[in-house]
Amino acid sequence: MTTPVVDVHTHVYPPAYMDLLRSRSSVPYVRTFPPDTSSSRLIILPGEDDPSRPSTARGRPVGPAYYDIKEKIAFMDAHKIDISVISLANPWLDFLSADEAGPAAQRINDDMNAVCAQNAPGRLYAFGALPLSASTEVVVAEIARLKQLPYMRGIIMGTSGLGSGLDDPALDPIYAALQAQRLLVFLHPHYGLPVSVYGPRAGDYGHVLPLALGFPLETTVAVTRMLLSGVWDRFPDLQVLLAHSGGTLPFLAGRIESCIAHDAHLMKKQANSGDANKAPRRRRSVWDVLSKNVYLDAVVYSEIGLRAAIEASGADRVMFGTDHPFFPPLEEGETEWLSVRTNYQAIHAAVGREQDLAEGVLGGNAIRVLGLKHA
Amino acid sequence: MTTPVVDVHTHVYPPAYMDLLRSRSSVPYVRTFPPDTSSSRLIILPGEDDPSRPSTARGRPVGPAYYDIKEKIAFMDAHKIDISVISLANPWLDFLSADEAGPAAQRINDDMNAVCAQNAPGRLYAFGALPLSASTEVVVAEIARLKQLPYMRGIIMGTSGLGSGLDDPALDPIYAALQAQRLLVFLHPHYGLPVSVYGPRAGDYGHVLPLALGFPLETTVAVTRMLLSGVWDRFPDLQVLLAHSGGTLPFLAGRIESCIAHDAHLMKKQANSGDANKAPRRRRSVWDVLSKNVYLDAVVYSEIGLRAAIEASGADRVMFGTDHPFFPPLEEGETEWLSVRTNYQAIHAAVGREQDLAEGVLGGNAIRVLGLKHA
Repeated sequence: MTTPVVDVHTHVYPPAYMDLLRSRSSVPYVRTFPPDTSSSRLIILPGEDDPSRPSTARGRPVGPAYYDIKEKIAFMDAHKIDISVISLANPWLDFLSADEAGPAAQRINDDMNAVCAQNAPGRLYAFGALPLSASTEVVVAEIARLKQLPYMRGIIMGTSGLGSGLDDPALDPIYAALQAQRLLVFLHPHYGLPVSVYGPRAGDYGHVLPLALGFPLETTVAVTRMLLSGVWDRFPDLQVLLAHSGGTLPFLAGRIESCIAHDAHLMKKQANSGDANKAPRRRRSVWDVLSKNVYLDAVVYSEIGLRAAIEASGADRVMFGTDHPFFPPLEEGETEWLSVRTNYQAIHAAVGREQDLAEGVLGGNAIRVLGLKHA
Repeated sequence: MTTPVVDVHTHVYPPAYMDLLRSRSSVPYVRTFPPDTSSSRLIILPGEDDPSRPSTARGRPVGPAYYDIKEKIAFMDAHKIDISVISLANPWLDFLSADEAGPAAQRINDDMNAVCAQNAPGRLYAFGALPLSASTEVVVAEIARLKQLPYMRGIIMGTSGLGSGLDDPALDPIYAALQAQRLLVFLHPHYGLPVSVYGPRAGDYGHVLPLALGFPLETTVAVTRMLLSGVWDRFPDLQVLLAHSGGTLPFLAGRIESCIAHDAHLMKKQANSGDANKAPRRRRSVWDVLSKNVYLDAVVYSEIGLRAAIEASGADRVMFGTDHPFFPPLEEGETEWLSVRTNYQAIHAAVGREQDLAEGVLGGNAIRVLGLKHA
């Protein structure tokens, strides 16, 4: 293995962001709960903030792995990861007021860039966060500013957009700026699905249903709404990296394409769109977008899922990731993480016999697409 | 090709059920809407019953393909399908009162069995419907009765169960009866996801988001809840056929398994379950259930999805289906359906070079599992 291993899906809550969360008393926030006040817990979803639940079922413990970059480097060393492209974890800056968002974005993006510059040079790059609750002008200005920060390689974004989803036409100036600056959009879930979906016994199942199913479906809905609203018809060079191997997109792409082709209402609308003197606009297929605009991380925890991802977007568009610091081992003192080993094994099982494809997924693709330089 | 082709996913609304729908004035129901009163429309979801939408966007046209078995036979002939295992379409009997449900189930199941007996003998079998709003005793009695009807080969069921999902312990006597009678459970979505998930512009996208994403996720949530609640630990021989190749289960199985293994709350609960004097019960993995209790139809509209389904459950557990009479061609007069061709092509692309596997998926598996006899 001569190509460096690159982790494109790895989160941090830098100190400036932790301060912000500790200063708050509603979701998202960080605090301690009795009886165990020795460790803080991170509550990021309204459904996690239920006082009737035991403290161990509220959010997740938050420790140095979330904010101390030395822990990230130690994790990278333990798992033979040469380069990490770190990103702010959810819910990013989505919850800030219009006035707070712009300055917070600058402060936190500068913080992320400085972390990359100061620690283990050549091993860290970053995706920035956008102040989406501020005005479009502020967002577009931050995109231009991010492009000038030497370690920034794209932006991470949730599915809320300006508050009503990524199919909002008001996002067009932002998509235009991201396309023009050639910044990759790392699209990541946070909001999940309404808890009613999980039924009256969901409390028995820990975080499994929202994490295992809600997150991937949220991503799939978001990207399908982008597709149906014509985002990639208007911005044919907009590039997105979809978390968790696209949620469920590689598996459902055929069904999405079939449902579009069989929807009388939608097909009639499409035929009537555009200038009456011109031929109707040719809609780009899900498959076309998957293979030209979509990158997928390899965070899918199975050979079957990974192979579907590779077949959907191409082995040159899939990139290794860990989701660190989430999914740590349950046993204290384990240095090798089961979650990481599972994803490594999936890559070896799916393309291990094709060394060049495996090296691409493990790092070569990220190096090429993001322009990374290994020290 | 010497093995008959069998369609395990094909719906009917038999005359007794159409009469029921025509007699109703709230969802689900059948009626005409002005200005086009020449054809009836079928409204089965609350979200489809919006008077502000044009009649062409309300529900779907319902014609003889839904209730006239001659149309089914003609469709089978046009698509080289030798045997169809017909099932009542959603929402089955879910909406009936406790008193109505039992008699309606008998009437409609007898109707389905008679249709199989009277028309083109040897070409039709059926899955029955359960009166789930009646008492458990009535449901269990209907299961025993179904077993005696010569063309019945299982039951079709939605995800609601007795009203609160398939992880409801009150379903145990029903699961026990289905396991004891060795009746396959065809698990099919209907309720989808809350419409808020699709955002404020969902009206622009026809039925695509609920059908392409809501349906598969509903199935995935339902089966994951069954798994987490221990249904297959208690009923290790209960066999289910999951619609639409498992929703998204083959793709997400790895993530589900990983989320379970990393959930401190759930793992602690599991370790503490069972008799204190015995070792903790060993939870069956998603993969184990997929390969021993789950059958998947091949209604996934892509080679990528179908290959994932085959890898997840085994080529001997995947079965061809059409979803007829849904997803008809948009052009009048087309006899070959694009939706069917897409699924045939997916099978040929995924296992076409392995003739025995392809014949199994196309019909051999259904013949073996359901005990079908071709005339």
